[in-house]
Amino acid sequence: MIKAGIIGATGYAGAELVRILTAHREVKIVWYGSRSYIDQKYADIYRNLFEIVEDVCLDDSLEELASRVDVIFTATPQGYLASILNDAVLAKAKIVDLSADYRLQDVHVYEKWYGISHRSPQYLAEAVYGLCEVNREAVAKARLVANPGCYTTCSILTAYPLVKEGLIDPDTLIIDAKSGVSGAGRGAKTSNLFCEVNESIKAYGVTTHRHTPEIEEQLGYAAGRSIVVNFTPHLVPMNRGILVTEYAACQRKGDGSLPTYAEIKAVYDSYYEKEPFVRVLKKDVCPETRWVEGSNYVDINFRIDERTGRIILMGALDNLVKGAAGQAVQNMNLMFGLPETEGLMMVPVFP
Amino acid sequence: MIKAGIIGATGYAGAELVRILTAHREVKIVWYGSRSYIDQKYADIYRNLFEIVEDVCLDDSLEELASRVDVIFTATPQGYLASILNDAVLAKAKIVDLSADYRLQDVHVYEKWYGISHRSPQYLAEAVYGLCEVNREAVAKARLVANPGCYTTCSILTAYPLVKEGLIDPDTLIIDAKSGVSGAGRGAKTSNLFCEVNESIKAYGVTTHRHTPEIEEQLGYAAGRSIVVNFTPHLVPMNRGILVTEYAACQRKGDGSLPTYAEIKAVYDSYYEKEPFVRVLKKDVCPETRWVEGSNYVDINFRIDERTGRIILMGALDNLVKGAAGQAVQNMNLMFGLPETEGLMMVPVFP
Amino acid sequence: MIKAGIIGATGYAGAELVRILTAHREVKIVWYGSRSYIDQKYADIYRNLFEIVEDVCLDDSLEELASRVDVIFTATPQGYLASILNDAVLAKAKIVDLSADYRLQDVHVYEKWYGISHRSPQYLAEAVYGLCEVNREAVAKARLVANPGCYTTCSILTAYPLVKEGLIDPDTLIIDAKSGVSGAGRGAKTSNLFCEVNESIKAYGVTTHRHTPEIEEQLGYAAGRSIVVNFTPHLVPMNRGILVTEYAACQRKGDGSLPTYAEIKAVYDSYYEKEPFVRVLKKDVCPETRWVEGSNYVDINFRIDERTGRIILMGALDNLVKGAAGQAVQNMNLMFGLPETEGLMMVPVFP
Amino acid sequence: MIKAGIIGATGYAGAELVRILTAHREVKIVWYGSRSYIDQKYADIYRNLFEIVEDVCLDDSLEELASRVDVIFTATPQGYLASILNDAVLAKAKIVDLSADYRLQDVHVYEKWYGISHRSPQYLAEAVYGLCEVNREAVAKARLVANPGCYTTCSILTAYPLVKEGLIDPDTLIIDAKSGVSGAGRGAKTSNLFCEVNESIKAYGVTTHRHTPEIEEQLGYAAGRSIVVNFTPHLVPMNRGILVTEYAACQRKGDGSLPTYAEIKAVYDSYYEKEPFVRVLKKDVCPETRWVEGSNYVDINFRIDERTGRIILMGALDNLVKGAAGQAVQNMNLMFGLPETEGLMMVPVFP
Repeated sequence: MIKAGIIGATGYAGAELVRILTAHREVKIVWYGSRSYIDQKYADIYRNLFEIVEDVCLDDSLEELASRVDVIFTATPQGYLASILNDAVLAKAKIVDLSADYRLQDVHVYEKWYGISHRSPQYLAEAVYGLCEVNREAVAKARLVANPGCYTTCSILTAYPLVKEGLIDPDTLIIDAKSGVSGAGRGAKTSNLFCEVNESIKAYGVTTHRHTPEIEEQLGYAAGRSIVVNFTPHLVPMNRGILVTEYAACQRKGDGSLPTYAEIKAVYDSYYEKEPFVRVLKKDVCPETRWVEGSNYVDINFRIDERTGRIILMGALDNLVKGAAGQAVQNMNLMFGLPETEGLMMVPVFP
Repeated sequence: MIKAGIIGATGYAGAELVRILTAHREVKIVWYGSRSYIDQKYADIYRNLFEIVEDVCLDDSLEELASRVDVIFTATPQGYLASILNDAVLAKAKIVDLSADYRLQDVHVYEKWYGISHRSPQYLAEAVYGLCEVNREAVAKARLVANPGCYTTCSILTAYPLVKEGLIDPDTLIIDAKSGVSGAGRGAKTSNLFCEVNESIKAYGVTTHRHTPEIEEQLGYAAGRSIVVNFTPHLVPMNRGILVTEYAACQRKGDGSLPTYAEIKAVYDSYYEKEPFVRVLKKDVCPETRWVEGSNYVDINFRIDERTGRIILMGALDNLVKGAAGQAVQNMNLMFGLPETEGLMMVPVFP
Repeated sequence: MIKAGIIGATGYAGAELVRILTAHREVKIVWYGSRSYIDQKYADIYRNLFEIVEDVCLDDSLEELASRVDVIFTATPQGYLASILNDAVLAKAKIVDLSADYRLQDVHVYEKWYGISHRSPQYLAEAVYGLCEVNREAVAKARLVANPGCYTTCSILTAYPLVKEGLIDPDTLIIDAKSGVSGAGRGAKTSNLFCEVNESIKAYGVTTHRHTPEIEEQLGYAAGRSIVVNFTPHLVPMNRGILVTEYAACQRKGDGSLPTYAEIKAVYDSYYEKEPFVRVLKKDVCPETRWVEGSNYVDINFRIDERTGRIILMGALDNLVKGAAGQAVQNMNLMFGLPETEGLMMVPVFP
Repeated sequence: MIKAGIIGATGYAGAELVRILTAHREVKIVWYGSRSYIDQKYADIYRNLFEIVEDVCLDDSLEELASRVDVIFTATPQGYLASILNDAVLAKAKIVDLSADYRLQDVHVYEKWYGISHRSPQYLAEAVYGLCEVNREAVAKARLVANPGCYTTCSILTAYPLVKEGLIDPDTLIIDAKSGVSGAGRGAKTSNLFCEVNESIKAYGVTTHRHTPEIEEQLGYAAGRSIVVNFTPHLVPMNRGILVTEYAACQRKGDGSLPTYAEIKAVYDSYYEKEPFVRVLKKDVCPETRWVEGSNYVDINFRIDERTGRIILMGALDNLVKGAAGQAVQNMNLMFGLPETEGLMMVPVFP
């Protein structure tokens, strides 16, 4: 039985970790870290866990935690883990970090987009970007995994095969993303009140959202060169779910023709057919967030526009599962040699 | 492995049965009955099951089905099962009926409230009302279980201990119920369109809702005499969930005083402390549907009003799980000698 | 042109006052009071008013305000107005108070339910309870109007004619109320975040909600004696709207029979037929909040239950309009001798 | 007083016409056409109009209607008006057509995208595309106005000044649009049921949506040449509102530099500063549909991305008002020489 600790257990991602790990046969949560709710019963805060979890919340003490558990999940604000991580901790426990601290290899990019200085860049080289479908083998050997962002997981997996195979021009890539409100966290902000969000949609962080460089770095690896993209997130009045709609110019063939549906589909299949959590949909079926809610699936599809020469890619996932806690557990499974799907085969909940 | 067939597999209750049974270790669904979608892939209709269920929908043939499966779930319109059930079928397969056909023991009451004639009243005596917490032993021996209605499950379980123990006057019982929209089914009606339901609340079926006599019959058994109640359902703009708020006069003690919180709580505990799916909340915590969503739990609590001498009871459940498919599986578990909680310990999904 | 000032202009009720008064032909708002947003442009906070309102928010200074305006609307926390009101202010400007400070004539009841001491009980005798349909003439002469609460307006108007005419037993009255989230205000509380409220329903303030004594006092006047009722509010995932479902035993006639539909309807009509903002619906049509959204209407109807001898009353209004700002303007119209409907004949917005 | 008739009065756009015209001082509706609800009271279908509109629905008879009214609004399915329009009708009454029948000048484009043959192409030359901000003078003289689509109004107005002034490369234009559900109409389809739409987002009509050629034609006029664009609509779980996010490459200056914020803003202002219904927001403020709900405003803004050389344009409107009924009334005002804003200065309703 793997002993797990969670720092930041009372945010939405932390709570989703609790939901998933509670049902995981090989894991026992022994530390519910929450600075805001110390000594309160966890199930008094997340009452869905009433009579399921009896523990109380504990303070955040990475050192002590490391000596008690096998794996630490940090669902904490940016900069937190970077400010306290050290060799002693890493020697004792594996870490899956749900913050952005070790996602970007270039510390200058991190500091520019996040506006804080990185306090432990020495671990960047060791940290593995935990997008299992891309970095499966490296994750399996890692002590420190940087769990990808919710938007980025969806954005990257949707475009990855086509960028990697050179089927689209990455310089033309535009990502228009839409997210449910749980992605904004559980902080008590006026802008996330029910009446402010309900019955409305807006873009935010236009040209400045912090997931942009993460997408650029990872898709840049696929492209074999650095790229810049437009990424525009939107807030949608629903609890969960991310949908990305991506636009790119197709690379035309020598005769000037566009790739066919079958050709693109074959490329997607070659990457994802055996992936347990990536579902490439049938022709002309558009991904919808309702079909992945509560599950670890990413649904992907595409459509070629003969008129404009562009391809429209679409991807959908549950931001709290494949976009956060589910992927974190998927990484943990790999890191501990468990079946990758252990505890993650939840059927999506609809309606 | 128990072989299961579902008639009415493409309604919301049917789809929830599929979700639950797909994850149930002892059951395999071998028949997805849906008159509306014959020969279509089930996962083309409920795309959450894409790459999970590969079967196509079949016509409704109770006879043939009975010879192929161990258990049949009927999630069908009122009157359907009553019109085709026969001895041969019952001899071959056990049935959990999610319709109202065998819920009311008095056929005249059924015919009056449902406005149709009952075609097989001869099975009423055999049918067991499948409220597991009340009829556990009878269910275990039954061939034909009448799965309770969603409103009724919530209404009855919330009041049952107090009626049974004579702590409230059942003639004063008023049940004000609120339901999410999935309870209205998947039929294409204007009144259930998004824009008609969203941003509104209404009562409906006032004094005439068909769950009224079901509540009256079952609570009448508890009271030891026939009772009439007011039951008023409301439609709430959310997918899932039922909340009932019940009002009744407390039976005063000999000295005219009201029962205390501790006394009422002790009664609830004596009935429900060991029930795996009934959670009596802490003092002053009100049930909320969000804390049971996606799960088989019923959350219950109460508050005594010294000023009016009434007690206010509250109960919350997920209408598709404990109010339909989950309870159906709970019944099935009992009927086949499985652990009652098998396949049903899903942690509620929040947010 | 009436000059108006608003204290608390940046709460939801305050903002609705701005929306309504901006379109009112006889009023000009000259003071947007908001302690939280001093010196900020009002339209930067409520961007629906961009290019419509150019003013900036001012501090709350009742004295100065009184010398500048004809009418002051206070949409402020309980206790605020009571703590600063004085004769000089009342000599200069009329006041419509949207808080509870002058709603309850009995200061002990106020202090008990609100948990604060009343700082200016000397004005209670003068204050008029601004339920126009009941106190029209007194409002017209008032300097200080206590604008009723949202739940109370709906609860009282729905039951008033039947209580007044002795057609129901007020001791049996139970009010089950449901409200949209704007009733909870714009404060940044975790419990009102989108993800906490969406897809859920709950009761709150059970047996303790502060609108209870207000309902009891006003319906007590109608009954001619003091009464106690059960009032249970619920939070519904929608922006606006209140629905009340009220239950009471009918007073039977001398021969033991219940009143007929026609008899009850005639009573409602005698009270409301000429009321511009009260609509008694057709037989068997249940009020729905969607049909009054954005308007000053209250929709009312009832249904007699022959089985239980009770009558079920239903009422719906928009909590920010007839439940707050619209009623405040209706009161202002009366106080200034304007047509009562001036600026208030907005057609409800649907969908 | 202008006498108006509506054909298709019981769809959502028709009902919004009724809401707006009921409050319009110069118009009286004398014909509520609705084939589905003949002889039923209009206010029985749209109960927001109870005690406001007393008329019953009439059959669709264009000829008879034309002889009774001054203006006819047709909120009808595609092809309907084209199949029955004739000279006699046009000689008697002005027409504002909310369908697509006369929006596209090229009948082949119409027939290709709509899949039906156009039955009266002879009126295409006469029909004026009723985007008031662009075609104000032509509208004023027109007998037949083609009221623009909801998506198109938002898409075109957002990009128009920049295309017209050559500040963006129209061949790079990508429009990612998001709409509330009322845009899908009131037809009883499973796909528009509350539970199917709520808590989800999806793209639809990818590369094939019928508003695409309308955008291309109108922006082509602005560009001075034909263009093709990508237009992708999405369905958002809210009643009203359209948001468009548009991406295009900026035309660089001779020195290779991008236009500045001030330069682009100046262009927008030169087009829209005096427009009563177009609001160009302050720097860095993103349009949100909640700020225009219930009103005839379009909110627009933009952000230049120095990294990619693209500009991101955003526009928001209420699809039933500026996207349908409001714009139709704006056209009618122009056609009858009324002030363009008459009956349309509704303050947006929030929350």
